[in-house]
Amino acid sequence: MTTGAIHATLADDGAASLAARLAIRRRDHVGHTAGLAPGFAQANLAILPQSFAKDFARFCALNPKPCPLIGVAAAGDWRIPALGEDLDIRTDVPRYRVWREGVLVDEPRDLLQCWRDDLVTFAIGCSFSFEQALIEAGLEIRHLTRNCTVPMYRTSIATAPAGPFRGPLVVSMRPFKPADAIRAIEITSRYPLVHGAPVHIGRPDLIGIADLAAPDDGDAVPIGDDELPVFWACGVTPQAAIAIARPAFCITHYPGAMLVTDRRNSDLVPLPAVEVG
Amino acid sequence: MTTGAIHATLADDGAASLAARLAIRRRDHVGHTAGLAPGFAQANLAILPQSFAKDFARFCALNPKPCPLIGVAAAGDWRIPALGEDLDIRTDVPRYRVWREGVLVDEPRDLLQCWRDDLVTFAIGCSFSFEQALIEAGLEIRHLTRNCTVPMYRTSIATAPAGPFRGPLVVSMRPFKPADAIRAIEITSRYPLVHGAPVHIGRPDLIGIADLAAPDDGDAVPIGDDELPVFWACGVTPQAAIAIARPAFCITHYPGAMLVTDRRNSDLVPLPAVEVG
Repeated sequence: MTTGAIHATLADDGAASLAARLAIRRRDHVGHTAGLAPGFAQANLAILPQSFAKDFARFCALNPKPCPLIGVAAAGDWRIPALGEDLDIRTDVPRYRVWREGVLVDEPRDLLQCWRDDLVTFAIGCSFSFEQALIEAGLEIRHLTRNCTVPMYRTSIATAPAGPFRGPLVVSMRPFKPADAIRAIEITSRYPLVHGAPVHIGRPDLIGIADLAAPDDGDAVPIGDDELPVFWACGVTPQAAIAIARPAFCITHYPGAMLVTDRRNSDLVPLPAVEVG
Repeated sequence: MTTGAIHATLADDGAASLAARLAIRRRDHVGHTAGLAPGFAQANLAILPQSFAKDFARFCALNPKPCPLIGVAAAGDWRIPALGEDLDIRTDVPRYRVWREGVLVDEPRDLLQCWRDDLVTFAIGCSFSFEQALIEAGLEIRHLTRNCTVPMYRTSIATAPAGPFRGPLVVSMRPFKPADAIRAIEITSRYPLVHGAPVHIGRPDLIGIADLAAPDDGDAVPIGDDELPVFWACGVTPQAAIAIARPAFCITHYPGAMLVTDRRNSDLVPLPAVEVG
């Protein structure tokens, strides 16, 4: 199918996600994807050899808040039609990370050279979707206001293990005044496939976070005296599990450089359990 | 229409709310209505002379969280068919309170003697509905576990005034562990006509509550070291506004003795704005 045909079947603003992917594919757009094609869901990627796929799918199913699966490709297939008919996993993300035995070995701009017939691609929902919904509701997202990366913390909450995949739940934190925190919980609970409602609020010590000023990843943000820290399950959780599983070969997206999909944030609904051979 | 005809048009468990009203009407059931006809919404009542009705309706419209209107009767009418076709405001509540100039003068078991042709009845959603939903989700409601009345507090948050009706927002408080508090917010946000999501969480000092152990109404409940207090807008708020407005004549329900309606908790949806002549 040609991209012209795709254009013909999409509403006007539906073309925004396709246009973003084509710009990335042409390398007209490099770097992070925050703000691209507003209203369309972006995805974290985990691309694993088929021998690991069944366990990883089970890990996602057991841990839907950090690992909300929004699409899975067949082994060796670089397409996920449910996320975009013309989508090509190998070229439509601005930057990738290639891992061998848990060690980062390359950060290529496409996967055309390293693609393998046994690779299974998992697309996992991303907090960009719910942040857009929060902004539309008039809430301030502190790390966006400060133009930095959301602070992330490893917690004392364990994920449910599946085969070699296990490890701590990683959370992202956004501070809000109490009434705004309630609003943020209400709004994000409507998006179960982009991490959904927070997992914790108000008491970092209860989930093993000793110092909010020292995140494990991302940047610390100031928290007002009249604010509560609110914690969401984070898409870094599966990467932590992959680092522990140490598959011989594995690809992820480069942090912040997501896959732009044709699925609207507003119509993300839970997938049934995914069976991977 | 006869009650037999009503029976015929209701599902089996639909008859539970009618049966509760008939038992109250016959005075087979006296006292509070907690636990009666599970799944059906109960209502707070405010019954005011028509000269106050327009302002009170506006007060409710301006303050939907404490005063979620689920039904209004025509002046002089003791029926609210939308809440139950056979429902009779004068007899279907176990106990009432009659007020003159803001002073409590009687607590009758029916309104047959004191009914007036100029009275307008307002039915306001009640937290019994969302407490049932929380229990069904496996959450512990502290004041129910302790078999006492939910603690209520006047806050420093002002309601939006309408005519003579004004005053503080009154809140009820239920403590939860943080993850359960998030779950409680998610669940109650689905019930906008029974106070909806909380108005505050975690920091009573920010809303003018100096001591959680000294509620303005109801009973104090213990709060664990690992718990946060969660505050919902409370149906006592309109009574506080009525006490300030001091209408020459006014009727409310007796606290805890609610109107059992045929509306299911699960299908409460917001009413359009109510115009009262």
